Amino acid sequence: MRWLRYSYRDEIHFGILRGEKVFQVTGSPFDAYQEDGVVLELGEVKIEIPVVPRTFYCAGLNYSEHVIEVAKKQGLEPVLPQKADIGYRANNALIAHMENVIIPQDATEKIHYEGELVVVIGKKAKHLTPENALSCVLGYTIGNDVSERTWQRSDRTFWRSKNTDTFKPMGPWIDTEFKPDEALTTVKVNGQTHTTYKTNAMIFDVPTFLVEMTKYLTLWPGDVVWMGTDGSSPDLLSGDVVEIEISGLGCLQNTFIRES
Amino acid sequence: MRWLRYSYRDEIHFGILRGEKVFQVTGSPFDAYQEDGVVLELGEVKIEIPVVPRTFYCAGLNYSEHVIEVAKKQGLEPVLPQKADIGYRANNALIAHMENVIIPQDATEKIHYEGELVVVIGKKAKHLTPENALSCVLGYTIGNDVSERTWQRSDRTFWRSKNTDTFKPMGPWIDTEFKPDEALTTVKVNGQTHTTYKTNAMIFDVPTFLVEMTKYLTLWPGDVVWMGTDGSSPDLLSGDVVEIEISGLGCLQNTFIRES
Repeated sequence: MRWLRYSYRDEIHFGILRGEKVFQVTGSPFDAYQEDGVVLELGEVKIEIPVVPRTFYCAGLNYSEHVIEVAKKQGLEPVLPQKADIGYRANNALIAHMENVIIPQDATEKIHYEGELVVVIGKKAKHLTPENALSCVLGYTIGNDVSERTWQRSDRTFWRSKNTDTFKPMGPWIDTEFKPDEALTTVKVNGQTHTTYKTNAMIFDVPTFLVEMTKYLTLWPGDVVWMGTDGSSPDLLSGDVVEIEISGLGCLQNTFIRES
Repeated sequence: MRWLRYSYRDEIHFGILRGEKVFQVTGSPFDAYQEDGVVLELGEVKIEIPVVPRTFYCAGLNYSEHVIEVAKKQGLEPVLPQKADIGYRANNALIAHMENVIIPQDATEKIHYEGELVVVIGKKAKHLTPENALSCVLGYTIGNDVSERTWQRSDRTFWRSKNTDTFKPMGPWIDTEFKPDEALTTVKVNGQTHTTYKTNAMIFDVPTFLVEMTKYLTLWPGDVVWMGTDGSSPDLLSGDVVEIEISGLGCLQNTFIRES
């Protein structure tokens, strides 16, 4: 099942996507819902972010090639993470599929994409085990952890390098049947493939992170966990169109525009 | 004016606190509201966190004595922050006034309080100036940035050192007339004063942070900004009662209990 969150005539709704048709519901996938009989064409609604997270988790470094690439660019020895230490991102930065990433005037040219698998939590959970970890997952969507690398190194936190307004595209929908095992993540810039990796080639996979996290924290419906990225990005220019496709899940597309 | 968020007979409401009486409203201080005629005694409601933040910002290091104390304990030279780089905390960790902080079984004895002034945003804002920065502020409340210092040093992020469930007490209410200038923050453990500092002796004050943050990000109604702490904390024991009082604003009280 694919869940779409969208606006139509100035109201935001959840709907179930079947082919190109959106079957509107009252309620949401995070509690009770019921189809209300309204059926719309996908092309006539505006796609919104699939959920406004209660808490916005992000794994950061979680693929070895990405860690090695980052270290190489800084002239350092790569250090792979030894533990599944989760990080955070900020809701202010979220934008939807097809909305524009706005690069601030004073940002450097070091604007990079990071295509990521996103886990959407559907049920309250604590003290998960490897066996039941996925039972709290509603489904999956796609994120682009846009980064300004100069600020990432110069600032004490990731506040503007990672969380500047529009730096966190997420969408287009939540797929409840997607399985990461066989999937490929492909990132294209202006139609040209720049990065391809096995979506599940994570250092710590989804169950491992959820088990570790829920030793100390409660997951809530609507929380999201971004799972990190592999490979590296070219410096993105104003006008560049970035597509992050995860096979079997969907494609998140956003255009990068430098503020004038 | 003082805004209270509370539950009564299993429903959560906002109300206006006048003396010991709560005047219930429909709506919230973040949009339209109207008193609905219900008046309750403060003693008969359960105080809830004053707002569920959309984004939970936290200044971290923002008082010089705290930076110096932390460095001394680690045998390092203190490095004062040179820029107002905001950080983040997580909603899962929030608890209300009079709720218990639960120390996980495997936490060390290095459990510390950090009493903080909390700014509650009432209006959407970007590109604020020093002159109009406070125009987006609804009011102020109090936070306790509870920390497990061993995890703070050992982990790649602050996920469990600062964001373990119950590690972020906030409340008891939002005061819309409070002015930080003359206020004192006093932290008591079991009734004994352990820390006292001028609330406004910040390295970067509230307008400075809001101006810097809104160069890159939009503040939204319901966002909170925790402003950092001064001084240092003793190691807290199971059963300790911590009160954070900010003069003219209120007192946030929580008991620390080690998980058995």
